[in-house]
Amino acid sequence: MSGRLYLVPTPLDHGCAVQSPLDDVLPLRTLRVAAALTHWISENAKSTRAFLKRVDACVPLAQPIQALHISELPRAVHKKGDHAGVAPFDARPLLAPALQGTDIGLISEAGMPAVADPGSSVVRAAHALGLEVVPLVGPVSPLLALAASGLGGQHFAFVGYLPQASEARARRIHELEARALRGGQTQLFIETPYRNAALLRALLQTLQPGTRLAVSHGLTLDGGATRSATVRDWRTDAEAHAFAGDAPAIFAIGA
Amino acid sequence: MSGRLYLVPTPLDHGCAVQSPLDDVLPLRTLRVAAALTHWISENAKSTRAFLKRVDACVPLAQPIQALHISELPRAVHKKGDHAGVAPFDARPLLAPALQGTDIGLISEAGMPAVADPGSSVVRAAHALGLEVVPLVGPVSPLLALAASGLGGQHFAFVGYLPQASEARARRIHELEARALRGGQTQLFIETPYRNAALLRALLQTLQPGTRLAVSHGLTLDGGATRSATVRDWRTDAEAHAFAGDAPAIFAIGA
Repeated sequence: MSGRLYLVPTPLDHGCAVQSPLDDVLPLRTLRVAAALTHWISENAKSTRAFLKRVDACVPLAQPIQALHISELPRAVHKKGDHAGVAPFDARPLLAPALQGTDIGLISEAGMPAVADPGSSVVRAAHALGLEVVPLVGPVSPLLALAASGLGGQHFAFVGYLPQASEARARRIHELEARALRGGQTQLFIETPYRNAALLRALLQTLQPGTRLAVSHGLTLDGGATRSATVRDWRTDAEAHAFAGDAPAIFAIGA
Repeated sequence: MSGRLYLVPTPLDHGCAVQSPLDDVLPLRTLRVAAALTHWISENAKSTRAFLKRVDACVPLAQPIQALHISELPRAVHKKGDHAGVAPFDARPLLAPALQGTDIGLISEAGMPAVADPGSSVVRAAHALGLEVVPLVGPVSPLLALAASGLGGQHFAFVGYLPQASEARARRIHELEARALRGGQTQLFIETPYRNAALLRALLQTLQPGTRLAVSHGLTLDGGATRSATVRDWRTDAEAHAFAGDAPAIFAIGA
């Protein structure tokens, strides 16, 4: 019988100075499965080992960390105009142990693997090989941000990064605003953290006064917050213009 | 100091005969916050009490269930052509206890509140009143389905229900396929469970052979599964045509 591919989510505190206990954000089943796995596919073996050390503090690992097999994914390929672009690749060789009956974990740097990261090629390969794919529960930042925004959650899209060039960015903002207002589809997007302030400025210049804008940072973390208001209200609150600072943030616009 | 609005996710086993322990799918922090809350806003007080009974088995409740305050949301208003349509309403009166300093929990029937349910009006009202909104970690079925699909997770949209009339539904399927193939945006949608088979048939008749289609059911539950393949492969596998049965399912199409 073939092994399964488990999609193992991780906390959103990657790179943060203060990290809370894993069981604050991961259910026991996720921790138990992670503790039992001996084979992993990851973006970065070093941070996977750091994560597993934290798992071990909650649920003892089946094998010492040094004895685990961790395969790294190919590095992200940055396509022009698309930060998060990763060329699809044939990940079937990485899954060979599963064909011998060994369960494998897929893990990303933060959050749910195969959402906004290169892991989907691995999941696709697992389906091609007829392996069972099992997603485990953990934090998923775009959906936490959507819920916390108070914007319509019945229809929504996550559109990644906006263009950096100011004219192209303004055009894209108008396009997303039209989809949010006329199409009723809340639009979520992200930015490289040090450009948060520039993006927020562009949004406040470009959007209509009545459009709602929400920004979340530090989701699931101490000191995290969400601000959601009309563009009119954002404009008149000078303090809000530095809201997310240079923390990883998620932006949303809606009716 | 004002109270907070906590967004408390629930398991995806609402209405299932067999339910697993809550800590399988909810992290300890979510359980601890839920156990401490005395005021709730919910779609259905009866199922909120049933959920809190399960919480109590993991983390003892601060107050007996009979002593809790549970306010119900207005019933969903089914707008023509949109099953999940809920008219926005002024939810500020429901949040009065928070202005006196009491934390309030918002909860839905299954999964994350304010995603694909009427809770967003409450979240919006909380922002209008200047309350802190704190989303807690738990299962979110559209994102579990996206991760398990192996379809591109860098750009995606959740579009709710498709039209029921066959011509309108076929037009909508073509439109979603174009967004998935030309726009590179994975499209996720749902159906009333007893219509799963009819929707799957329509998808297999309408989509191009090379388009990828994924269907997930029973996410986070025993016996749950995800099938992801090209339309060509779905068509040649007669068994697959009854894949989701009449279980709640999530459909995805992508390149």
